[in-house]
Amino acid sequence: MAALVSDSLAKKNNDKASENSTAQVIGGHGTNSYSNNSSYQRLSANVVTKKIEDAIMKNLDVETLSSTSNIFRVADFGCGVGSNTINSMQDLLQIVEKKYISQCPTSSQMPEFQVIFNDQFTNDFNTLFTYLPQDKQYLVASVPGSFHNQVLPKSSLHLAHCSYSLHWLSRLPKELRDERSPAWNKGKIHYTSAPPEVLMAYATQFAEDLDDFLSARGREMVSGGMIVIVGSSVPDGMPYSQVVNGIMYDCMGSILMDMVKTGSISEADVDAFNLPIYACPPGEFIEGVERNGLFSIEVIELMNPAPWLKGPIDIPVFVKHVRAAMEGMFSNHFPSKAIDELFDHLVLKLSDISQQLESCYRDGLQLFAILKRK
Amino acid sequence: MAALVSDSLAKKNNDKASENSTAQVIGGHGTNSYSNNSSYQRLSANVVTKKIEDAIMKNLDVETLSSTSNIFRVADFGCGVGSNTINSMQDLLQIVEKKYISQCPTSSQMPEFQVIFNDQFTNDFNTLFTYLPQDKQYLVASVPGSFHNQVLPKSSLHLAHCSYSLHWLSRLPKELRDERSPAWNKGKIHYTSAPPEVLMAYATQFAEDLDDFLSARGREMVSGGMIVIVGSSVPDGMPYSQVVNGIMYDCMGSILMDMVKTGSISEADVDAFNLPIYACPPGEFIEGVERNGLFSIEVIELMNPAPWLKGPIDIPVFVKHVRAAMEGMFSNHFPSKAIDELFDHLVLKLSDISQQLESCYRDGLQLFAILKRK
Repeated sequence: MAALVSDSLAKKNNDKASENSTAQVIGGHGTNSYSNNSSYQRLSANVVTKKIEDAIMKNLDVETLSSTSNIFRVADFGCGVGSNTINSMQDLLQIVEKKYISQCPTSSQMPEFQVIFNDQFTNDFNTLFTYLPQDKQYLVASVPGSFHNQVLPKSSLHLAHCSYSLHWLSRLPKELRDERSPAWNKGKIHYTSAPPEVLMAYATQFAEDLDDFLSARGREMVSGGMIVIVGSSVPDGMPYSQVVNGIMYDCMGSILMDMVKTGSISEADVDAFNLPIYACPPGEFIEGVERNGLFSIEVIELMNPAPWLKGPIDIPVFVKHVRAAMEGMFSNHFPSKAIDELFDHLVLKLSDISQQLESCYRDGLQLFAILKRK
Repeated sequence: MAALVSDSLAKKNNDKASENSTAQVIGGHGTNSYSNNSSYQRLSANVVTKKIEDAIMKNLDVETLSSTSNIFRVADFGCGVGSNTINSMQDLLQIVEKKYISQCPTSSQMPEFQVIFNDQFTNDFNTLFTYLPQDKQYLVASVPGSFHNQVLPKSSLHLAHCSYSLHWLSRLPKELRDERSPAWNKGKIHYTSAPPEVLMAYATQFAEDLDDFLSARGREMVSGGMIVIVGSSVPDGMPYSQVVNGIMYDCMGSILMDMVKTGSISEADVDAFNLPIYACPPGEFIEGVERNGLFSIEVIELMNPAPWLKGPIDIPVFVKHVRAAMEGMFSNHFPSKAIDELFDHLVLKLSDISQQLESCYRDGLQLFAILKRK
């Protein structure tokens, strides 16, 4: 069930202004909060830490970076709420310190480190700050605003991190709701199992968002600075209906259509709702980075997002995680009673098809990339 | 009633860890929130803007500052919640832009501006961000943490602002609660009308806090950078019982002692409670800055904090403002029922002595200082 931890568990919708997509993780510390239901995400982060260490030890030239500044800034774009972002940032700092010690053994002192947490204006930064350790050895700032725009001063950032955030589209393509368009996504909530025009509309929006993200980071980062990107993906050419998240989105769509039949919600509401999530295949990602032109690709690979997950998954626990990450999107569009019904039925429906879930493709569903500012 | 808008309306307790002093303004947008009850503070800010403009136009050398960096950072220390801090920062940016245009008329472009909001970790930054204008032309960051410590990278800050925040003590001197000490503050909640040893304990703590504040800003600021300080004061040698805020603290103390008699609260609770607020006279302030040694004093003066306030004040409205700023301090120490009783009685008690309040000293109760990093 490894694939289940990928984009459905994504922590944030870095959304600008779209129809049904001011999605947000659940803040605070409550039962359904993201901070209390994001342990899978942390496990996933551990898997990539070693790869990041290899890349930084090999490719980040801290001697050159420290020749122009006594401060080293690390930022997490789409940080969300909870301890995962803090742990990830601390892991990165440890690696960078190690690189300093290795590359500049005669240097009298480390630079100062500043950790910057970025997410939308509506993110629960108050709760995030409660997770900071009291004895932290670094400076901290939060920077609100969409990461599709510049949010930091020019040439001020040395290392960027973006984990399970890029797949959130900044807005939903209008044609998904346009009855006259071949991309009208009637009776579905995602491009999985939808007409190719729907997939194309999603892919085009993602390409635009990726370009905005790279251009903004391009302005903010110093030459030689690096971006670590981890997120949802799928092998080139594989339909999303062959992976667990796609199957889950199809389930969600069919549950919502069943709820139309019982009168819980209207069909127009389902037609108007689409998940602003796109799992970019590596080929498209490489094309996007090359077209943008500001970064070189140091590492790119598809990974199994959760190789440690063996045997049958605990579906109720899994759905709790999914709900913590995705509830905001649904609750902005459907009545709150319908949300409980949706997630209750999702547990039943996924349990019914657990064998299908177990047997589907799960290996290369996580993109891991390291880019370097030219 | 001008003096009433000074330290009792102070927006924040930048407190580290002390007994009864995790005081906080009321966050959110509710009836008793600081953001909806801080219009007096904004009026007060307008009065000093012209003085800041004069000092920046005369003393801030933006040409030298911009020769080393393309970013100009402005920070508000003890920003609180609401639109006042945003308005103050925008006023400062306008003045700095004006100075750039005047001093560097041939320069092809302005630097980028970044506005940094600092306050304690527990400050409601989420609500603060909702007040940011959508079309803002500057970058934004929030930096949580006590301003008695370094919170920003070394030599990264160009202009600092600290309005009605410095008077909050970082902690309450222990001797105020020590029965064996001559500074035991029995039956009172402030140094107003208390023995001189109590005043001395407050003054000593303030001097230490001021030194910590200046040392921290000294590390963060570039040479030539400026700090604007606005806050509660009192003329050298004048007892605090002669000014409105002192009279109000005495009233609060005596209301609490009345509540001891009716059994609403215990006498031990009143003995253990002290307001962590110190209005520093200019002589002590100058001594502190000179002893610290990192800053020169460009401007220092006592002002009337609210010269526009004429005639009788609306005491219920005033107490609402006081409550928004101070309730947190009391509610951390006394039961919530007692808080309503205290503020209800405060309206009555201040109304009874309104003539005394009208006639007391009100002129030089606001310290305005501009310091420059050597």
